[in-house]
Order: sequence, then C-alpha cells, then structure tokens
Amino acid sequence: MADCVFCQIVNGKIPADKVFENELFIVILDIHPASKGHSLVIPKKHVDRITDMDDQLLGEMAAVAKKVANGMQKSLGADGINFMVNNGKVAGQLIDHAHMHVIPRFSADKIDFGWNPHKYEANEIKELAERIRNSIRII
Amino acid sequence: MADCVFCQIVNGKIPADKVFENELFIVILDIHPASKGHSLVIPKKHVDRITDMDDQLLGEMAAVAKKVANGMQKSLGADGINFMVNNGKVAGQLIDHAHMHVIPRFSADKIDFGWNPHKYEANEIKELAERIRNSIRII
Repeated sequence: MADCVFCQIVNGKIPADKVFENELFIVILDIHPASKGHSLVIPKKHVDRITDMDDQLLGEMAAVAKKVANGMQKSLGADGINFMVNNGKVAGQLIDHAHMHVIPRFSADKIDFGWNPHKYEANEIKELAERIRNSIRII
Repeated sequence: MADCVFCQIVNGKIPADKVFENELFIVILDIHPASKGHSLVIPKKHVDRITDMDDQLLGEMAAVAKKVANGMQKSLGADGINFMVNNGKVAGQLIDHAHMHVIPRFSADKIDFGWNPHKYEANEIKELAERIRNSIRII
C-alpha cells in the first residue's frame, strides 16, 4: 500500500536497518526500541492484522522470529526475549501492517510488561471459557 | 515433567478451564488474567522455552493462538488482542514450560504494555543490526 510505512520499507523507499530478510519477511531494528536490538518481523505482503494472515505464513513468521531471537541471545548476550504482537489499535498497534516485536531482555533492564491481575467471580471463569470455546468450534 | 504445573494440567492432574484442545496443544484461561478471557496456549509436550521448539510445532502454536484470538473477538467482543511470549525468567516467564499469552483487549481497559523508548547513538543502530545479522547467518 502506497501510504504504508512498512510497505515503503519493504520496497526500499524508506531506509531501515535490516537484521534478516527472506522471500516473505524482512526484520528491521525498531527505531523506538524497548531495549537495544528490539526488532520487528514484517511480512512483505501487506496485511493489516496478524489475525488476518493465513496459517502457513503465520507459522513461517513465528519461525523467523525464533531465528532472530536465537541470534540475539548469541550475538547480544540477551538473557531472555519477549515476543509481542499488538493486534488492533486498542492493543497498541501503531502501524496498520501486521508485525511482531522481538525484544531482547537483560538482567536489570527495568522493562516491565507485567499487569495487575483481575479476579474472577464465582462461576465467571467457567462461563467465559465456555463462551470462547463455543465460538472456536464454529469458526 | 512430574513437577511442572502445566504438564499436570495437560495430564488432568490439576484442573483448568479449557478453551481449546487438540492433539498437540491445550488452551486454558489464565487464573491471574490481565483481562477477562486472557488465555494461555500450551504445547502438550514439555519444553522449557519457546525458542527450543521446532519450527513446525511453533507454527501450529501460532495458528492455534490466532484461532483463539478470532474466537475472543467474536464471543467477547474484544476490540484487539495482545499475543505475548515471555521467554526466560528475565523476560517474565514464571512457569518453565513454554506458553503464549492471548489477551483480549477492550477500549479503556487501562492495560499498558508500552515502554520507554531508548535512543541509539550515531552508528550504534547499524552496528547492532550487523551483529544480529551476522549471528543469524551462521545459525
């Protein structure tokens, strides 16, 4: 798409620091990184949301992310990795071209992706599980 | 593994609220959820870290997560989804059996998985990209 930043990076119209590239994906360094080395796995073909990608392409994306993560552990001495996909604006997706964050983690890096846990009332958890379960069966 | 909580859930020795199950994975509701409906995709076969899973199983895990996410958008009216894998203790992995968080998001839910961005100095970003790139080539 002409006005999509990631499509323009894929097409070489906007420069980026590439970490990996194959036929289907590019991986670049995020310019606003949570930690140094933080990378983005981007499918070359435009799709707004990762939930709209077909299973095969999604699987290959996960394999690329793993490869990059293992590279980070080796080359940067990362002690751990966060993989994150923000799917939809409300989930923090800033660019409407599906992408996965691969974030190298280091001891005492002060990053916190934790949350304040909710509590379920009485049978609420069973009812919720049933609702989700039923919706998956008929997809 | 006998002392692994997720293995015991897979084996039915510890109860859990299942959202989905197939030959390779179970999906259960997290009992300390970031939002109501927050689920965990768990491979039945024990592996400590997602970075140790083979590409095919990892790809199937991503497809299961997508299926669950689409089910949540349909059944719970979620406006977005966060997918998150914390790989390693320093990244927030609390249970040493690989798993993926699938977190339904709603407007004004007050969850924030953002970060304070670092800045790269001069050629630092190019040097880092090259280090990661070189480490991937020889994996």
